Amino acid sequence: MPRYRLDIEYDGSAFSGWQRQAGQRSIQEAIEDAIKAFCGEDVSIRGAGRTDAGVHATGQVAHVDLAKDWPADTVRDALNAHLGLASDAVAILAARQVGAEFDARFSATARHYLYRIVNRRARLALEAKRAWWVPKPLDAEAMDKAAQHLVGRHDFTTFRSIHCQANSPLRTLDRLDVTRVGDVIEIRASARSFLHNQVRSMAGTLKRVGEGAWTPGDVKDALAAADRARCGPVAPPDGLYLIAVDYPAGT
Amino acid sequence: MPRYRLDIEYDGSAFSGWQRQAGQRSIQEAIEDAIKAFCGEDVSIRGAGRTDAGVHATGQVAHVDLAKDWPADTVRDALNAHLGLASDAVAILAARQVGAEFDARFSATARHYLYRIVNRRARLALEAKRAWWVPKPLDAEAMDKAAQHLVGRHDFTTFRSIHCQANSPLRTLDRLDVTRVGDVIEIRASARSFLHNQVRSMAGTLKRVGEGAWTPGDVKDALAAADRARCGPVAPPDGLYLIAVDYPAGT
Repeated sequence: MPRYRLDIEYDGSAFSGWQRQAGQRSIQEAIEDAIKAFCGEDVSIRGAGRTDAGVHATGQVAHVDLAKDWPADTVRDALNAHLGLASDAVAILAARQVGAEFDARFSATARHYLYRIVNRRARLALEAKRAWWVPKPLDAEAMDKAAQHLVGRHDFTTFRSIHCQANSPLRTLDRLDVTRVGDVIEIRASARSFLHNQVRSMAGTLKRVGEGAWTPGDVKDALAAADRARCGPVAPPDGLYLIAVDYPAGT
Repeated sequence: MPRYRLDIEYDGSAFSGWQRQAGQRSIQEAIEDAIKAFCGEDVSIRGAGRTDAGVHATGQVAHVDLAKDWPADTVRDALNAHLGLASDAVAILAARQVGAEFDARFSATARHYLYRIVNRRARLALEAKRAWWVPKPLDAEAMDKAAQHLVGRHDFTTFRSIHCQANSPLRTLDRLDVTRVGDVIEIRASARSFLHNQVRSMAGTLKRVGEGAWTPGDVKDALAAADRARCGPVAPPDGLYLIAVDYPAGT
């Protein structure tokens, strides 16, 4: 059976999250329904990142095995046509055939997330549900300084949801940058993999630094404590985007 | 009575347009309702641009006279609080007191619009209703070349809605640039004032050039013909943003 890699964009505000759940509208189900409508097959697709309710993607990756050897562009166009009948919220950016060894989740070598904060007095209109609105002025430089304490291999228990199912709280954070352009503060996080709620937990904690409630050193101490109670408030899903997933060259 | 200038952002897809119309939900009405809820006054506000249904703004400007001398930040915050109860779609970015000579519509010396095209095979998800989706590859350089034929003082009858109420079809277009960054093509248009549907008429015509159906010279000829029938298809409102309005220094 040929295997296809799908690159996917979605507006997470319309969904209960990536993962199929009984009685909820998930992105996974929307795409599986489109596949069923396209070729009649009942399939289960696997995504690189199991994004939560309200979290967006511009570069989610999934794979699926289909019985027939369709041209990849036909798969992309047909799924988009069927998705379009259901809602505006999901698009298949690209489809291509990959080898049977490709697994969207387990082959991934890095995941890249963007967290967007709009930092202004006025409420959001065009950015509603697309960013975290923080009206109080934030010091992005202090946030970036604090972020550097989190980069590297650490026990991220402090920044991990109590519902996290990973075996180990150890992760290697390759990048955590905070930059400001005008009213928009962008946090960019890269790692081979993240713990559940890790990016939002880090973003919420960095916001505490930005508003002056915490120092960068407090973040270092909170990490070292390996204690969930030391985490800042978890940032809302609205600002989070899965923007890219890396795989070994040639897959 | 103190006069206030309001700088306004909105998601136009939620509204019938800027202007109050019986039986329709307009942005003007939403803001006037918020003013009524804030201070009990029945007011009529005047905007710099009467954007159509589906057209967005990040820099609309309006003015309003209030009976009482409120701090401008109070006006901004109170209107945002009341707007927030009704929908996510309008925000007052700033409010400030201005002199009685300031008129958001008639004092404006320039209006700046952005028209966004997303040019890719895949349908839109995060950009749905925020951009014009054009799946066929467009040549942005050819579009920019064609656009330069429209810059300057001309009879824009070709690019004017048959419903346009302006006395004269003569306008001076100060800028019309087409640039591409990745999948996004941006058309930026500036003029003291525009005719009804002028930007969308120009954008739709430039798209014809981008896909190779028209040459830049065809656009020059269509302008010279001063004939509405020579216009390309009018581009949809989804991609259009009123981004800024200029006023004389000191107002």
